[in-house]
Amino acid sequence: MFEQLGLIGCGLMGSSFALALKRAGLVRRIVGYSKSPSTTERARQMGVIDVEAPSALLAVSGADIVLLAIPVSATEATFKAIRHLVGPDTLVMDVGSTKRDVVDAARRVLREQVGSFVPCHPITGKEVSGVEHADVDLYAGKQVILTPIERTFTAQLKKATAVWTAMGCHVVKMSPQAHDAAYAAVSHLPHLIAFAMINGIKSQPHGKDYMALAGPGFRDFTRIAASDPQMWRDILLANREELLAQSKIFQQSLQSLEQLISGGNGDGLESQIRQASETRANWRVSSHKAHK
Amino acid sequence: MFEQLGLIGCGLMGSSFALALKRAGLVRRIVGYSKSPSTTERARQMGVIDVEAPSALLAVSGADIVLLAIPVSATEATFKAIRHLVGPDTLVMDVGSTKRDVVDAARRVLREQVGSFVPCHPITGKEVSGVEHADVDLYAGKQVILTPIERTFTAQLKKATAVWTAMGCHVVKMSPQAHDAAYAAVSHLPHLIAFAMINGIKSQPHGKDYMALAGPGFRDFTRIAASDPQMWRDILLANREELLAQSKIFQQSLQSLEQLISGGNGDGLESQIRQASETRANWRVSSHKAHK
Repeated sequence: MFEQLGLIGCGLMGSSFALALKRAGLVRRIVGYSKSPSTTERARQMGVIDVEAPSALLAVSGADIVLLAIPVSATEATFKAIRHLVGPDTLVMDVGSTKRDVVDAARRVLREQVGSFVPCHPITGKEVSGVEHADVDLYAGKQVILTPIERTFTAQLKKATAVWTAMGCHVVKMSPQAHDAAYAAVSHLPHLIAFAMINGIKSQPHGKDYMALAGPGFRDFTRIAASDPQMWRDILLANREELLAQSKIFQQSLQSLEQLISGGNGDGLESQIRQASETRANWRVSSHKAHK
Repeated sequence: MFEQLGLIGCGLMGSSFALALKRAGLVRRIVGYSKSPSTTERARQMGVIDVEAPSALLAVSGADIVLLAIPVSATEATFKAIRHLVGPDTLVMDVGSTKRDVVDAARRVLREQVGSFVPCHPITGKEVSGVEHADVDLYAGKQVILTPIERTFTAQLKKATAVWTAMGCHVVKMSPQAHDAAYAAVSHLPHLIAFAMINGIKSQPHGKDYMALAGPGFRDFTRIAASDPQMWRDILLANREELLAQSKIFQQSLQSLEQLISGGNGDGLESQIRQASETRANWRVSSHKAHK
């Protein structure tokens, strides 16, 4: 049981975490801060937080657990704002979709207190953002990737694991490097592609008419294109090397299909599609595997 | 009310059509044919068809409505097999995802009876195939695109419109050319991309591990990659010109995002993502618009 959660960022991820932590009976008091005072006020009115803090530092004051739920590009500045109140017993976590940049910022800014920070990436989200979409079940049954470094305190890693597990998550540990390589392939690249495809259609004279004819396949394929622009700008930039490497592999794969198509190679094309189809048909969202 | 549906192809699309036509009270008897006799037998056992036909021609014998629910590449051969029994009062329809190739085949083979053929493309489907997934509600509330040509009989077009409408579909009419251009952009390209992305990930040494970490965004984005290989081979080949043109536009759009990323242009990137995000957020599956 924690005395106080210092919540920095009262958007979808932060608010949902606060609700879930409270429901799990793991915290007595939640003090929240958001860059926009109206968001913080809204979070208090909705019962997501108990007390509004006028700064990130004041949200951390008296907190034994701190969650950064902010765009990854704001991580370094936030660490700077709070570092004087991060002690060896404070558990500090984030929910950023990239991990190397966050870990680098933590090393640079938190210095001897970097051991209190456990980098986290919960594999969940929605294509909508904001406290008004807070969902107590957002994390339940989902994977959470922890990417501790060599200086992470054992005690904090243990506490972080316990917190996510109590919220119904399946905890997986790996290095920040391995994390960023994997999510470049299975998350950042699909987002990049979805953004590119929508913009490509929209740029055409009849693009709007085309979209009016689209069906359920298009709907599911492009759902992630509606994601938050600022958040995804940060992610794509923060993980640019891995992402551009993945995009290159993808374009090579696309061009090899194009060659089969333009050459009218039906057998080769069918065999490539069959490989994709079987691979995808045999895949299941991993949290389902872990929890069912 | 039709006397007899001659169903050629008892897979997912054909079987679901048979069930829906029967439920709508529009047909007395369904005679079905599939290339594989075990599929035809299964369809009869499941009550999808009333009588098994040993050939496409015999399924058409005595039919006043005929549905071709087969891979588009089999269309021409099937027209050849049945043309002697297609009369001026027979309504012949298909459910193919491409229309120019189907219309060309109809012109070549059906000749003076081409007017009996109404080319159709219902915007529905599943990533699974086969009679065992037959679903009486597969077509309900969905768009169906009819692409009549100048020689299509008015009476047949009217009947086709009435059939789909009675099954709860929203009927849209356009030229085969306009159809193929639109669906290259919003259906064939997304499938091509999804196949390419899965193959690109699978080709990597850690590809399997990466996929094990993927979440709900990946799940929805790649759902269409599990589609039927033979059916999609045919579609991608049949509409290759429009598809390759769309793929080119897509790759240009992707590369312009890549340039913003590698150049670290945060503002430009955010503005491009915002355009995609807003476009997608304002889009709705069109059948929903029409029916809700």
